[in-house]
Amino acid sequence: MPSQRIGIWIIGARGGVASTATLGLLAMRKGLSEPTGLVTALPEFARLDLATWDQFVVGGHEIRESTLFDALDRLRTESRVLEPAVIDACRAELTEIDSRIRRGSLTGCGPTIGRLAGEAMRPLAEEPPRDTIRRLQGDLREFQQATKAARVIVVNLASTEPVAVQSSLPESWKELDRLLEESARVPLPASSLYAIAALDLGMPYVNFTPSLGATLPAIQELAEVRGTCHAGQDGKTGETLLKSVLAPMFAARNLEVLSWVSHNIFGNLDGQVLDDPAHKASKIKGKDALLGKILGYAPQSHVSIEFIRSLGDWKTAWDHIHFRGFLGTPMTLQFTWQGCDSLLAAPLVLDLARLVELSSRRGETGVLSHLGSFFKQPIGLEEHKFSQQYCQLLAWAAERAQ
Amino acid sequence: MPSQRIGIWIIGARGGVASTATLGLLAMRKGLSEPTGLVTALPEFARLDLATWDQFVVGGHEIRESTLFDALDRLRTESRVLEPAVIDACRAELTEIDSRIRRGSLTGCGPTIGRLAGEAMRPLAEEPPRDTIRRLQGDLREFQQATKAARVIVVNLASTEPVAVQSSLPESWKELDRLLEESARVPLPASSLYAIAALDLGMPYVNFTPSLGATLPAIQELAEVRGTCHAGQDGKTGETLLKSVLAPMFAARNLEVLSWVSHNIFGNLDGQVLDDPAHKASKIKGKDALLGKILGYAPQSHVSIEFIRSLGDWKTAWDHIHFRGFLGTPMTLQFTWQGCDSLLAAPLVLDLARLVELSSRRGETGVLSHLGSFFKQPIGLEEHKFSQQYCQLLAWAAERAQ
Amino acid sequence: MPSQRIGIWIIGARGGVASTATLGLLAMRKGLSEPTGLVTALPEFARLDLATWDQFVVGGHEIRESTLFDALDRLRTESRVLEPAVIDACRAELTEIDSRIRRGSLTGCGPTIGRLAGEAMRPLAEEPPRDTIRRLQGDLREFQQATKAARVIVVNLASTEPVAVQSSLPESWKELDRLLEESARVPLPASSLYAIAALDLGMPYVNFTPSLGATLPAIQELAEVRGTCHAGQDGKTGETLLKSVLAPMFAARNLEVLSWVSHNIFGNLDGQVLDDPAHKASKIKGKDALLGKILGYAPQSHVSIEFIRSLGDWKTAWDHIHFRGFLGTPMTLQFTWQGCDSLLAAPLVLDLARLVELSSRRGETGVLSHLGSFFKQPIGLEEHKFSQQYCQLLAWAAERAQ
Amino acid sequence: MPSQRIGIWIIGARGGVASTATLGLLAMRKGLSEPTGLVTALPEFARLDLATWDQFVVGGHEIRESTLFDALDRLRTESRVLEPAVIDACRAELTEIDSRIRRGSLTGCGPTIGRLAGEAMRPLAEEPPRDTIRRLQGDLREFQQATKAARVIVVNLASTEPVAVQSSLPESWKELDRLLEESARVPLPASSLYAIAALDLGMPYVNFTPSLGATLPAIQELAEVRGTCHAGQDGKTGETLLKSVLAPMFAARNLEVLSWVSHNIFGNLDGQVLDDPAHKASKIKGKDALLGKILGYAPQSHVSIEFIRSLGDWKTAWDHIHFRGFLGTPMTLQFTWQGCDSLLAAPLVLDLARLVELSSRRGETGVLSHLGSFFKQPIGLEEHKFSQQYCQLLAWAAERAQ
Repeated sequence: MPSQRIGIWIIGARGGVASTATLGLLAMRKGLSEPTGLVTALPEFARLDLATWDQFVVGGHEIRESTLFDALDRLRTESRVLEPAVIDACRAELTEIDSRIRRGSLTGCGPTIGRLAGEAMRPLAEEPPRDTIRRLQGDLREFQQATKAARVIVVNLASTEPVAVQSSLPESWKELDRLLEESARVPLPASSLYAIAALDLGMPYVNFTPSLGATLPAIQELAEVRGTCHAGQDGKTGETLLKSVLAPMFAARNLEVLSWVSHNIFGNLDGQVLDDPAHKASKIKGKDALLGKILGYAPQSHVSIEFIRSLGDWKTAWDHIHFRGFLGTPMTLQFTWQGCDSLLAAPLVLDLARLVELSSRRGETGVLSHLGSFFKQPIGLEEHKFSQQYCQLLAWAAERAQ
Repeated sequence: MPSQRIGIWIIGARGGVASTATLGLLAMRKGLSEPTGLVTALPEFARLDLATWDQFVVGGHEIRESTLFDALDRLRTESRVLEPAVIDACRAELTEIDSRIRRGSLTGCGPTIGRLAGEAMRPLAEEPPRDTIRRLQGDLREFQQATKAARVIVVNLASTEPVAVQSSLPESWKELDRLLEESARVPLPASSLYAIAALDLGMPYVNFTPSLGATLPAIQELAEVRGTCHAGQDGKTGETLLKSVLAPMFAARNLEVLSWVSHNIFGNLDGQVLDDPAHKASKIKGKDALLGKILGYAPQSHVSIEFIRSLGDWKTAWDHIHFRGFLGTPMTLQFTWQGCDSLLAAPLVLDLARLVELSSRRGETGVLSHLGSFFKQPIGLEEHKFSQQYCQLLAWAAERAQ
Repeated sequence: MPSQRIGIWIIGARGGVASTATLGLLAMRKGLSEPTGLVTALPEFARLDLATWDQFVVGGHEIRESTLFDALDRLRTESRVLEPAVIDACRAELTEIDSRIRRGSLTGCGPTIGRLAGEAMRPLAEEPPRDTIRRLQGDLREFQQATKAARVIVVNLASTEPVAVQSSLPESWKELDRLLEESARVPLPASSLYAIAALDLGMPYVNFTPSLGATLPAIQELAEVRGTCHAGQDGKTGETLLKSVLAPMFAARNLEVLSWVSHNIFGNLDGQVLDDPAHKASKIKGKDALLGKILGYAPQSHVSIEFIRSLGDWKTAWDHIHFRGFLGTPMTLQFTWQGCDSLLAAPLVLDLARLVELSSRRGETGVLSHLGSFFKQPIGLEEHKFSQQYCQLLAWAAERAQ
Repeated sequence: MPSQRIGIWIIGARGGVASTATLGLLAMRKGLSEPTGLVTALPEFARLDLATWDQFVVGGHEIRESTLFDALDRLRTESRVLEPAVIDACRAELTEIDSRIRRGSLTGCGPTIGRLAGEAMRPLAEEPPRDTIRRLQGDLREFQQATKAARVIVVNLASTEPVAVQSSLPESWKELDRLLEESARVPLPASSLYAIAALDLGMPYVNFTPSLGATLPAIQELAEVRGTCHAGQDGKTGETLLKSVLAPMFAARNLEVLSWVSHNIFGNLDGQVLDDPAHKASKIKGKDALLGKILGYAPQSHVSIEFIRSLGDWKTAWDHIHFRGFLGTPMTLQFTWQGCDSLLAAPLVLDLARLVELSSRRGETGVLSHLGSFFKQPIGLEEHKFSQQYCQLLAWAAERAQ
């Protein structure tokens, strides 16, 4: 196969995760960085025919103004998480990617996200959903043509939306499609409009956020109808990853978890948005539900997320796990996780792009449930133990090894 | 099957783990305690024909004087880890078990353990290995006859011996057996003499300590020759359990562990013995080796074990894991584990007794490698990831389910 | 001086702190316990003519039914913080004290506290403030006569009330007194009614809680008018104590605190009441204000208090302090405090009773500002650095040494 | 006073602390950095006539080759603790200071430090102590003349020497002086030779390390004889600072410390030298002794220092404090301190230079015991409580305020 071009289209293209993923892609291509943190760089995936870093081209939607370089420079200065030399070396490519970023959508994003938007978003304030979808599709098609990409993978990395009300929406794509044609008031948030735009064009859609995205039955059906695939939701990068690793240990040893308290503090833009209770609710749901599913009972649990500006991109989690052992004796495990949010998430975004691209190339359709280990709330998968989820990914890879 | 009696013969029968396991067995039999902490009480093992708590009778070897009641009362008072009412309710049975405890062996145990021994041990100071084995076998036979036990499982819970020199010993049982007959100076430590005594009688032997035990090829061969089974070594109860759970996560996410520092502090008798560098070396080896095996490379690691008297049975571990993520950014995970050593180990001892008894009843011979998840240094198993080890146990159980 | 009797009258007499203080008093009197945790048992206070443990008699107000023994037995069983033998040895005296406990007041305590009240409180639901004060005073007089106590110290240990609205109340005692005579709707919470009842009888009043108590100018004036003394407010026992010890270090080293995050989890009755946001607000205010006062600037701070049932009396605090050092480099201090709430507070209650009794005996009036080191929000003291507060106490003691 | 020049002569001039202090001095002079972390920049010291940053010139002794720029660049790259722009902006001045750095001494430094030395040190291997002193004094005089400095303050920041044997040395300067003239084998380590060289020239000497330095009675006498001053020893920057802050709290609350465990891990050059047990012993002594002095009794304590390469300049300390409260109940405080060693120490070095310069200018002689809050083992001061030590500094400053 002559080396095809592959597009990654990022929603929230100048956010912390997006700009870090973009920088990492460029840095690896230039040999400035090792593939540390990339699951697909492990030997277990060496025999898959995955796209290589130099095949990828990046574009995306964004509601904010500014540049990728500024976003990275802020990460570097405020959080000391990036090497200045690497950013400088990639400046020209970053500017080129900036030129491929288009205006996104604020539909259903609420006032907290709205306040982040640039001037250019203002004329779109009243845009009906159907028009938004058409506009987004225009951007996607233009990107694909301009870059001559054989395939485009759309990845949602935008700020977490408020909890969406889903009940009133039709279950089938046909009905939802009709509703979109007929009404300017369909209660779909931006994340779902992006999903529809992508899937309807046959482009795979990955939802790395807790927002609604493609989880609606009607949108999942659309993926099947158009013969494309999707995956989600909410990247599992830190504290929840640890929960999905540690909770199975308590279960396997028949140690009864009495309470599990999780405090998360961080100071990046994601944190600022989650400081709004409406957005926080979306996030906390995903961080908490897996305990009951893994343990088979629901211990008292508490999850807090607090915006502490000084921490910047450093997400620090303190978990206090109180458990009962033999003869009823209570014991304690505490952990403190100090991770850079963007740098934990970014490689997983590139992994997902590669893995989803391969599935797409091989004609796999519908939800890609073997990707569950990447997500806090894996669509199409009831399994929440990390180790078991990862075994499923390995099994999938083994079947497709060349 | 009419309910047979099963003997558990504990070496180190009045130690913290042994007395807690004995108390727990009695308490569960009386309905005073739930089976929390017992792996074999999980639903996954419900369809195995495991012996029930009321089938077990307990005896053992010990080098110290005192009583089980005193050992438990000290645990309760100094470490506040047991309910007084439970100990009181079991007092009569504990006294009865005390009457079935016989003098152990100090061979190769070094002066630190020697100082713990009671007066009654003094006449045995120069006992040649072959005589020791015969004496121990006499005790085991007497116990089996007196209790009419269908099978006796021998479990080593004695204090960790100094690192043993194994190189000079013959590889086959036949040669080792001859050497024992001919020489009073065979460099076998007590743990191996107990192992030989048990296996030679066809009784399964479980080594829950880092001591040499049955690991010698010649002794493993003896198990096969006598058609019995064995398992070991060094119970995985706390910090090493966490290592075997967390290290696979770093591996699966391609996060490079730069250093892993483990500090353990505790104040029970086990801690006092391990405060002697010769004994500590045995222990640390097992706590450290698995990292390289799980990760595929050896990060700088440091393990310390300190005897801090005030902590009593509360073993507190602080681990500091420094790792590198995407674009080379270093991050940190720290955990503090506050567990009661005896109460974490005791249920695993009962689990092992039940599982080994079933293997023995079913005629399984040699090393029981499916029990690897219970041990820091699993004999006969290269796998160190806890989740994979546990899957092997579940698979073994599934095959034998009724 | 022939040994006089001293009364301690505890509001919330069957709560965790109260019952522990009562038990400790009895245990020390019987020689069953050392005075660990008692500030007044330090050599620095040896030359003060403080009352001795056998001089004290205990009574109190309570809204709940049950007994002191039951309260202590629950503490022991649920939290494993007390020795059973000590409780058993004091059972008779505890029962005697139970007989001296009278019905308290629920005025202004809100529905969360109301739900804890026993049947006997029901007839008092509509009692006007003036009648409540008279009733409480009747109880205090009866106690003093029955026990022949030379002095009675009233200590408020009741659950934290919701934040009280104070603005509408008169500033002078004369006017407040008249208002109480004339109106049945004066917005004074129970803690202030107890304060008025005590001070009006010339009995000192100590407020160990964040409730309003004697902080109103009019009530402070009453203490002066009646020639008695008072102290408060909100005992400084754990995390805030650490703040008042650590923040001065950052100040003295010119290290800039960027953010200070404090998470508190615990599961006792106090925690249950604080789980109600109206009550939590009272508490958090006191835990947070001192930072700005010590540092001279207000870093971002966050205080949470969560009710985690399984922890019982074990209050666990995790604090994350992010600070900037030389050349702007950010660094971190984290601490985890695992203290028994009742056992940290109880000795301070006895200390305060002794110290206030001495002040009262010596004729000191008004607010006892030298007791500031005992309180989160010291009345009459602007100093919040623990070390400086403690120096003031030592200076006071040195002046009164014999 | 026209603005005089003040020399700071640093022993170990290219070490982490020295190069950071030098950079910080330059950065503040250029307005590139705030004086965060500098005690003397606090308002409490504003009315002292302290030298300003632009008065200072820097020179020093060093045994290693390389440059200040390289040392700083390594700190930045390996530990991410410095801003590249700041280093770049000061490059010319750093190079100039490099030209004023002379060869130090390896006498009594042991092989671990010896291995760090550059080629240029080789010819000095057998230099007798008296010759070394003369050579060092030549360097100091040359520096003072070349820079026209009114006063030169000598600060020892070199790697910790092995524990020195002091017993055999004479107590008076006269005798020690004679011995140095007569013998080439006087067992004085380099730190003491530097001290003699400086004090003998009337230059103040500050020992920021645990090495012997000026602690010998004979050398302390020399300071008095020459009418100059000195201070030491071992800068208190992190974990020991916390000990001197927290231990007084336990004392003031009569909480009995049962055990205090301190684990320190770090990876800079200092850590590499301390990894040698002979050097570690010097350090641990100072970190441990203060507990008994503050508490009035000696709880079990344990201090470990481990060299963990990946941590670079990030010194992480975990302390576990087990204490007993009321009614004998054990509780726990744990803290984790994540500080940059060089950046915590560097501002204190500049503070000491300023404070000692003022004392020198004012004619104060002998040990400057009011500087005790800066040191782990304050010479001439029995007080170890940080707050009290700091009060002494404030009192000294208040007396000298203008």
